[in-house]
Order: sequence, then structure tokens, then C-alpha cells
Amino acid sequence: MRIDATMTAQQVRPELLSGRTAIVIDVLRATSTMATALSYGIKQIIPVTSPEEAFSVASTIPAGERLLGGERGGLKVPGFDLGNSPSEYTTTNVRGKTLVMTTTNGTLAISKSAAASRVYTASLLNAYAVARQMIAGRGDVMLVCSGTQGNLSLEDVYCAGLLANEAKTALGDGVSLSDAAMACLVLFSAYSTEPETLMRLAEHGRHLWEIGFGHDVRYCAQVGVLDSVPVLSGGRIVEGSLEQRSEG
Amino acid sequence: MRIDATMTAQQVRPELLSGRTAIVIDVLRATSTMATALSYGIKQIIPVTSPEEAFSVASTIPAGERLLGGERGGLKVPGFDLGNSPSEYTTTNVRGKTLVMTTTNGTLAISKSAAASRVYTASLLNAYAVARQMIAGRGDVMLVCSGTQGNLSLEDVYCAGLLANEAKTALGDGVSLSDAAMACLVLFSAYSTEPETLMRLAEHGRHLWEIGFGHDVRYCAQVGVLDSVPVLSGGRIVEGSLEQRSEG
Repeated sequence: MRIDATMTAQQVRPELLSGRTAIVIDVLRATSTMATALSYGIKQIIPVTSPEEAFSVASTIPAGERLLGGERGGLKVPGFDLGNSPSEYTTTNVRGKTLVMTTTNGTLAISKSAAASRVYTASLLNAYAVARQMIAGRGDVMLVCSGTQGNLSLEDVYCAGLLANEAKTALGDGVSLSDAAMACLVLFSAYSTEPETLMRLAEHGRHLWEIGFGHDVRYCAQVGVLDSVPVLSGGRIVEGSLEQRSEG
Repeated sequence: MRIDATMTAQQVRPELLSGRTAIVIDVLRATSTMATALSYGIKQIIPVTSPEEAFSVASTIPAGERLLGGERGGLKVPGFDLGNSPSEYTTTNVRGKTLVMTTTNGTLAISKSAAASRVYTASLLNAYAVARQMIAGRGDVMLVCSGTQGNLSLEDVYCAGLLANEAKTALGDGVSLSDAAMACLVLFSAYSTEPETLMRLAEHGRHLWEIGFGHDVRYCAQVGVLDSVPVLSGGRIVEGSLEQRSEG
């Protein structure tokens, strides 16, 4: 298994994803929110790249069955039901609903990764569950760190490094890492037991803290507390861990 | 002083460089070769982005005063005088000549960085000399890791981390690091005394070793052995350390 990584959504080259599994990471907060929403019983998430597209897609779904969620500038988009804080998805009844979602970085990274043979989304919350699926799949992997508006985000790199570390631990020399994946692994190793420390140093973590989302940073720094494996299927993100669950 | 970093030449956004100092890094091997050639008395280096442009520019310079240097696929371009191995620039009489140079990643990064208020090139060989100039300048800095064909290269990230570390050591809290610059610093810290170990793990280092340039990897892994400070001036790279020398 070869593991490569990109540091920003903008850096994704769809032509390099053919035949590979892409794992999209936006720890603060899109992919943490996705894992949370799926764990709380949301039926599916339709990722779109703009608020306009979100309204348009939502208009095709009966009102009682849909939720509009996401952010611009970290804040809920006017007219949306929910923002991008995972806490909103644990306190709202999301069960059985379709979430139409747009965020600045995460949903862009998903849309740019669609050429991969399989697309998962990962956060620290569900990192071990996604790692198990990645390792079971055995195929080549691109870890897609979404970053923040074209810039690297430490918390995404940390999460990618955790996934690379899980693969190396499980498969040893059966895993080869690109330079980018190795850089992720080194960063993870440097802060392995201190994800919250890292996230409070990181630019996006500090920004969220300043605009009143410190509780989100703390929540998203938890490792492996959710079993959700979000997988892209026909343009929708659905729970992909059912197979694994039925095995266990 | 704020220090930011990009992980590949392709990621450079010229509009973000205005008012900043750019430090272009391509440890294996373009910026190592530049530092070496300037240390051995070359008058100036004209970086260009293609072999065709190199031939065209060279044709405007009298034959005895010019050298054509660079690589494609790591190998000397047919018709060029020299390749991209620093060893060629220590054994050829380069003194007083103009080098027209094109490489796959380094000269591209330089051309994309030209919008910066000042552009230096750095390698491990001359890292301390460039760091001193960067610290003396006090302005905001973009560390431009050239990478390899759109992918991150560990040795460039290591060199960027060394520069960030020098700035933090000299100026302490007077330096703020972006997430990308902090990622460079963490990688540098993990391998601080072992640049050659890192470069033999890195993809481009291994590739050079395989095609017979192991001596170059070893040479380029030396830290701080040259005092050259290459600076871009009017489209040419010239020795920029004279000012500092006259002060000392």
C-alpha cells in the first residue's frame, strides 16, 4: 500500500486519484461535523461547493426531510438551518434527514477528490474507524488535507499522520509513504498525545477560539470516539461502516 | 516578523508575496548548485523556465562569457555545458561567467516568487548565511519550498524549518509562524542533527542516489558550509552577501 498526501484542497490533482482511495480531512470542522451527524442518525449528506448550490439542491427535497448546513467565514450561512459546529448536530433532531452542506474548505476538497475510486471523510473523532477501513481496503491512498483557503492546517496534517501511523503499525513494510505522507507522520509523532495542544497552537484553532467556538476545538480534538465511516456514494456521503459492523 | 511557507512551487500565489521577502529552497539540487556556483566566483545566474528559453537567452551573451546549466529528469539537458550537480561547478572554471540555468522545480519557484519585495535562494549549504540576512531584514517572509513536480520534498521542508528555527532562536516571540512554517519547524526538529538520514529517506534523495548522484546528496546535506547569499536582482541571481561582509 502506498500512502501519499496533499496539504490543501487546492493542491488536489484529480488525474492522480484514479484507482486510489481518497480520505478527505477537515478536522476543524467539516469532517468532524459529518462524522457527528452520521453518528446521530442523519441519512445522508450532499456536499456542495456554494450556498447558491445548496439552496438549489435543497429545493428539490421535501421540507421536512432536509437540513441546510455549513459556513462561510466560520459562521452559519444566512437562511441555513445549521452552521458548521458539530454541537448543533447533536442537539438538533437530524435522524433520517438529508443534510445539504457547504463549507469553505472541506466540501471543496470532497468535490476535487471525486475522481478517486473511493472517497472517505475522516476527522480525529472517527480516525480509528476510517483507518481500519483504509487498512482493510489495501489499495493506494491519498490523504487529502483540506487546509484553510489554500494554506496548510496543522490539525489536518496531524490527522493524516495518525492515519499513516495506523497503517504503518498494522502493515509495517507493506506500507510505503511519500514525502508528504512522511511529513504528516513526523508531525503526528511530535504531538501524538497532545492533539488539543496542537490545535490551540494552530491558526484555525485559535481563530475558532476567538469567535466563540472553543468548545468545538476541544470536541474535535478527541481521538477515536466515533465509529462512523463516511463514504461518498453517488454524490452523497453515507454511513459506510455497516459492512464492518456486520462482520464484528 | 511573520514567517509563512509554501510546500511546492506550484502553490506559490504571487499576489501574496507583495511586500514580503521570498526565500526559495530547492535543496536537491538547484539552490545548492546556485550557492556553490556563486561561491566559486560565477558572476551571475539567469534563471529561466525552459531549455528553449535558456538557449535563446544564452545566444545574447558572448560565447566565452556564458555557461548553460540545468537539468530535465535530473540529467544534463542535451547541448548544455553543465547539468545540475554542484560538483560540476567546483571543477569547471566558472569564475566571472554568466550561468543561464533551468531546472524542473527550482527555477520555476524563483520565477513564481518574483513578485516578492526581495528574493533569496537558500540551501542547507548556505542556510546560516541566508538566515542572518533574513533576520537582519526583519520583514515578513515566505519560505518557498520548491518540492518535486508539485509534490512536497522533505529536504526542502527541513531547510525551511532550519530557517524558521534560526529566526525563532534569534527573535523569540518577535517571530510568528503560520501553520505551514510551524510544520517545517517540527520536521526540522525531528531530524535536526541528521539531515543526511532524512535526505536518504526522502523520495528525491533516493532517486538521485539511484541514478548515480549519491555524492550530491551527501554534499547537499552539509549545513552552513558556504557564506553565499544569492539574491535576485533585475532577473539575475547575484551574490548578496557583500553588504553584510563589509559590515563585519
